[in-house]
Amino acid sequence: MATSTAPSSSSLTLSQSLSKSLPTISPHPHRISLPTISLSTSSLKCSRRVASRAAAVRASASAVDVEDKTETGLVEKSVNTIRFLAIDAVEKANSGHPGLPMGCAPMGHILYDEIMKYNPKNPYWFNRDRFVLSAGHGCMLQYALLHLAGYDSVKEEDLKSFRQWGSKTPGHPENFETPGIEVTTGPLGQGVANAVGLALAEKHLAARFNKPGSEIVDHYTYVILGDGCQMEGISNEACSLASHWGLGKLIAFYDDNHISIDGDTAIAFTESVDKRFEGLGWHVIWVKNGNTGYDEIRAAIEEAKAVTDKPTLIKVTTTIGFGSPNKANSYSVHGSALGAKEVDATRKNLGWPHEPFHVPEDVKKHWSRHTPEGAALEAEWNAKFAEYEKKYKEEAQELKSLISGELPVGWEKALPTYTPDTPGDSTRNLSQTNLNALAKVLPGLLGGSADLASSNMTLLKMFGDFQKDTPEERNVRFGVREHGMGAICNGIALHCPGLIPYCATFFVFTDYMRAAMRLSALCEAGVIYVMTHDSIGLGEDGPTHQPIEHIASFRAMPNILMLRPADGNETAGAYKVAVLNRKRPSVLALSRQKLPNLPGTSIEGVEKGGYTISDNSSGNKPDVILIGTGSELEIAAKAADELRKSGKTVRVVSFVSWELFDEQSAAYKESVLPAAVSARVSIEAGTTFGWEKIVGSKGKAIGIDHFGASAPADKIYKEFGLTVEAVIAAAKALC
Amino acid sequence: MATSTAPSSSSLTLSQSLSKSLPTISPHPHRISLPTISLSTSSLKCSRRVASRAAAVRASASAVDVEDKTETGLVEKSVNTIRFLAIDAVEKANSGHPGLPMGCAPMGHILYDEIMKYNPKNPYWFNRDRFVLSAGHGCMLQYALLHLAGYDSVKEEDLKSFRQWGSKTPGHPENFETPGIEVTTGPLGQGVANAVGLALAEKHLAARFNKPGSEIVDHYTYVILGDGCQMEGISNEACSLASHWGLGKLIAFYDDNHISIDGDTAIAFTESVDKRFEGLGWHVIWVKNGNTGYDEIRAAIEEAKAVTDKPTLIKVTTTIGFGSPNKANSYSVHGSALGAKEVDATRKNLGWPHEPFHVPEDVKKHWSRHTPEGAALEAEWNAKFAEYEKKYKEEAQELKSLISGELPVGWEKALPTYTPDTPGDSTRNLSQTNLNALAKVLPGLLGGSADLASSNMTLLKMFGDFQKDTPEERNVRFGVREHGMGAICNGIALHCPGLIPYCATFFVFTDYMRAAMRLSALCEAGVIYVMTHDSIGLGEDGPTHQPIEHIASFRAMPNILMLRPADGNETAGAYKVAVLNRKRPSVLALSRQKLPNLPGTSIEGVEKGGYTISDNSSGNKPDVILIGTGSELEIAAKAADELRKSGKTVRVVSFVSWELFDEQSAAYKESVLPAAVSARVSIEAGTTFGWEKIVGSKGKAIGIDHFGASAPADKIYKEFGLTVEAVIAAAKALC
Repeated sequence: MATSTAPSSSSLTLSQSLSKSLPTISPHPHRISLPTISLSTSSLKCSRRVASRAAAVRASASAVDVEDKTETGLVEKSVNTIRFLAIDAVEKANSGHPGLPMGCAPMGHILYDEIMKYNPKNPYWFNRDRFVLSAGHGCMLQYALLHLAGYDSVKEEDLKSFRQWGSKTPGHPENFETPGIEVTTGPLGQGVANAVGLALAEKHLAARFNKPGSEIVDHYTYVILGDGCQMEGISNEACSLASHWGLGKLIAFYDDNHISIDGDTAIAFTESVDKRFEGLGWHVIWVKNGNTGYDEIRAAIEEAKAVTDKPTLIKVTTTIGFGSPNKANSYSVHGSALGAKEVDATRKNLGWPHEPFHVPEDVKKHWSRHTPEGAALEAEWNAKFAEYEKKYKEEAQELKSLISGELPVGWEKALPTYTPDTPGDSTRNLSQTNLNALAKVLPGLLGGSADLASSNMTLLKMFGDFQKDTPEERNVRFGVREHGMGAICNGIALHCPGLIPYCATFFVFTDYMRAAMRLSALCEAGVIYVMTHDSIGLGEDGPTHQPIEHIASFRAMPNILMLRPADGNETAGAYKVAVLNRKRPSVLALSRQKLPNLPGTSIEGVEKGGYTISDNSSGNKPDVILIGTGSELEIAAKAADELRKSGKTVRVVSFVSWELFDEQSAAYKESVLPAAVSARVSIEAGTTFGWEKIVGSKGKAIGIDHFGASAPADKIYKEFGLTVEAVIAAAKALC
Repeated sequence: MATSTAPSSSSLTLSQSLSKSLPTISPHPHRISLPTISLSTSSLKCSRRVASRAAAVRASASAVDVEDKTETGLVEKSVNTIRFLAIDAVEKANSGHPGLPMGCAPMGHILYDEIMKYNPKNPYWFNRDRFVLSAGHGCMLQYALLHLAGYDSVKEEDLKSFRQWGSKTPGHPENFETPGIEVTTGPLGQGVANAVGLALAEKHLAARFNKPGSEIVDHYTYVILGDGCQMEGISNEACSLASHWGLGKLIAFYDDNHISIDGDTAIAFTESVDKRFEGLGWHVIWVKNGNTGYDEIRAAIEEAKAVTDKPTLIKVTTTIGFGSPNKANSYSVHGSALGAKEVDATRKNLGWPHEPFHVPEDVKKHWSRHTPEGAALEAEWNAKFAEYEKKYKEEAQELKSLISGELPVGWEKALPTYTPDTPGDSTRNLSQTNLNALAKVLPGLLGGSADLASSNMTLLKMFGDFQKDTPEERNVRFGVREHGMGAICNGIALHCPGLIPYCATFFVFTDYMRAAMRLSALCEAGVIYVMTHDSIGLGEDGPTHQPIEHIASFRAMPNILMLRPADGNETAGAYKVAVLNRKRPSVLALSRQKLPNLPGTSIEGVEKGGYTISDNSSGNKPDVILIGTGSELEIAAKAADELRKSGKTVRVVSFVSWELFDEQSAAYKESVLPAAVSARVSIEAGTTFGWEKIVGSKGKAIGIDHFGASAPADKIYKEFGLTVEAVIAAAKALC
């Protein structure tokens, strides 16, 4: 497989000649002579804890304020530019994290200036290398790099408005704010798991679309993670999968700086990360001098690329806050501005006489080549794609749709429909019917379960397992790793708009992955969360497995759709909504138990969130409105039958998604829940928390405001009072 | 340090003589001759995937239906008793997980019959060894063991009502239902993290209370975890800490059966667990024949006990569903009843002619010694404690209070109080004042933060760090491991009633630990969650760090107290409530920003959940009620001042805990929120979800129903409309 930096195609002439005409630094470490002033590995190793100041002073010898004639000098200058852009932005904001950018500037420089292929003027170019800053608090590193590389999203004024209202440079990297940022990070460990998803997507698409001699999908995924990311369980989950899947084009830089917020990591983190990663099945390299050992970093990347069957962890030992004479190698430089005095001292120490936010001309000139080079890379790829299209028309069309995110015309016709005569089924089974129907028409649908495929009913029957040697398949086996699963799906969703990842576990175990789900919502990743066993209806497994508060907890979360379909049509409707919402994740709460197909349910109804499924009143004024969701809609419908027999006019409303209902017009809402009708009874096998909004202060919400129990489902429903009788009694008390 | 099974004190005569008079199996492996029929390691290793049936048949040769004369035969018989109790109970319930008990019965037998010290007639005896079944779905293993060992909580009828309404044998182990169960497991990975907490508690208390020659605190913590637990990130987090802390008396059995729900673990779990655990700093032993290699298991435990400076992982390779001729070693035996036909086949295969739930007389007789032995162990310890008490009166009294959970008389006098003249402060700082005041009077208070001690303000200034070599200290450094932290605190809380663990992170990162927090609520562990940076008020870190829906999500969770104090008195009140609620966890949402001490706030008010802090009306009929929590109570109070100037009668209510308010009398509630006053305005810097219940359908809830933003806090409050002006406008519109 071709590497990303040494393309051999003849169509590369433009970028090749460009790179020759500019004072570039070769991306190939073996062509570079070692900078004589760089610290030797052993001296750095000895000094890093006790003599960082001395080290910094020695290192600063190479930073001078005239145009650098040497490649090495220019690199050092570029690296210091990055450091000071970070220092200055944090200082101006009086808030932020200067330590990581100061320590990671060398690897950042090498990645963005020498290694990665990207087009700054089109941050969304499909075949770009992906970069994730998992240690998102160090975002000024990435903003500085995007700025130098020529991205329009991070101009000087953006750096100057770091962490300010409305800026493109928020306090943590946010893909929805800043083109050039791939994913949203900050909550630790998420980014590296996102990166696993990005690398999975690349491997999957490459296997599906690449042809001999035409590797149309071919990029690396790079990630920088810190000690904090390493401590989080999510990173272990995702990294275990990364090697299981053989994600050889995933290269992770572990910023091993031995400092976290509470001080030296020795107080809480003394494991051998190297050994753990070897156990996980990664290739591990240690760069002992991450501060000035540019060639060590370059060699490590070259070695990582040579290992194609497993991901590589490059442990890069750095000094947090490198260059700050009094704060380097201490927690004080992690999350606060250096302060004017220390900024001055650092300027002196690193030989940086420039005013804040200054980019020296030679550095600017050096980086300026990325704009034409990036355009050339994209043009070259476009030409390659045109060739590919000629030979493989069908594949090209499919790939195009994945790149654009355009759904195939008429895809929704694949959704199954049902009548009340169709035998009942659990909504988890109905979900599988939908997934399998959709997989035939949606080329980007792929996913799986956290070791519950046969319970969540998520297998796509026409596909095999996505595995190391069968990456073209679409059933992903996540193992019992809910948190990693969610974050990996975020990465898949953000790889390109046409990929539609779904993932599954028991609804109660959303608790394990809630941080990833919140990020789906925040970063606009339209992941489909297939959450089965959605209530006490799962029965004997008991309260540890029975969700109670979960549905309310997602209704309360911004930008996420919580859907609880009641039967076949509603499950199809939920999938229609979920597929259409590419920038908003959907949570589908699905039953373990069998449910009947109810008269009046419809896909269109689901799209409105709440709708009437039956009504024997006229003039929009029933005696009572019964409202149910999911498995309890049947109970509401049965209670309505009884109440009607006793002469009442009753409306039954399915309230499958509160968020969608909220978005309807006032007139529509009034047509479903007329203000004049205060006699309202809701029933849902979950907390009543929040239902006052729907039933009003005069209505009655029937639900469960305590934990569940271990027993057969029917018994629990009865004991907890979730019965037709209870609904009838509540209705009669109100009308 | 003395081991738990070889006491040398002369007061042990009773139990020693008892053990001699009964047909015991020696706990000491070196005294046991190897059973000649046991499979050799190598043959089992070769056969386990392909020939489990043959293996099972061979193993069954030793199970006969007459009284066994040999120790080995009796062990085998006891092990098969355990297997069939599990098989029969699952079969009767037609629901459950027989596979694990069938595979783990040998290690279970050895632990409960030969190794562990406990008193079945007092499951709460303080110095007992703790056992945790992290793979909680296999609970029939533990129920069978408790039954054989003589625990009154699991009688034959309890086994027969497995997974039924109201039984003592629910579908997963629940400490609040079944004495003898230490913690609640089922959600995977939690149990092993709980076990780390139990072992931490033992090490801490031993360091504080043991004296030369008087090791009054001295027990082991054993845990069985499966592949699922291993895959979960939480277990990696907790296990990293376990070795960091040098928990040498934690011994974990990893049931390495290569099967999870979706099939062979090869589809998703191919890392080297051994190597990972070596990387984590554990001592690792591999028992290759967990099915019949009793001596291997015994030797491993002995080796584990000899390693005192680090925890031990004993990887025990077993066959899931061992003995089932057609289902062993397959996922089909994991989570379903075997079915009548296969139960019969298994009975034949293992030579088990007995009717369901039968315990052979010799097995019964053999296990019967644990009742007198357990009583003797406790009596011996009581005598030892009496000696200890004579020598170390003060320590003994303190330890007694930890064992009983009785709080020192007058402890609450240590809580600080404030007046409106006291300079304002952030509630996170006020929280630290409370923690430090309480640490002086509460001997069981200990805890820490997930690497945010200096942000969460959780350090106890008079104590050092709980570390490997300073385990007597009380500041626990969890590293960036929120999920492990929560579950470890559950373990600490459930070790003995007087331990009061607290733990801390940013409120938004409760998303990382929600599964553990839910288990605190379910298993009645009164953990104190110190959650700072509780709103957009944290400012520049932006939406990844700003909680919005979190407060609602905990209000919706059963049996957990969500408290959001507004100032000094309320923070003290929140701590009073949290300390008093030993069977209900508390979540304290605390501000990063400074808040004034408001007139009218009080500890007593907090205890009622909601209360009036100011009112210029009479007759319980103000024009409008303004309701605030936490940092927004100040805004409500300021708005009230303005409204009163314009002639309105205004009540200001602090609504610090909805759960506590719910528990008040109807009369009290009416006195705070009179039904006749529908003009109500609430303000809270979080979602408005749920507030309809408080403000009613005519009221107005001011909040934030979208994600936050990165900018200085004041700016965000203004842009999001959380202002005095907004409250005034809303109030004026209503009255």
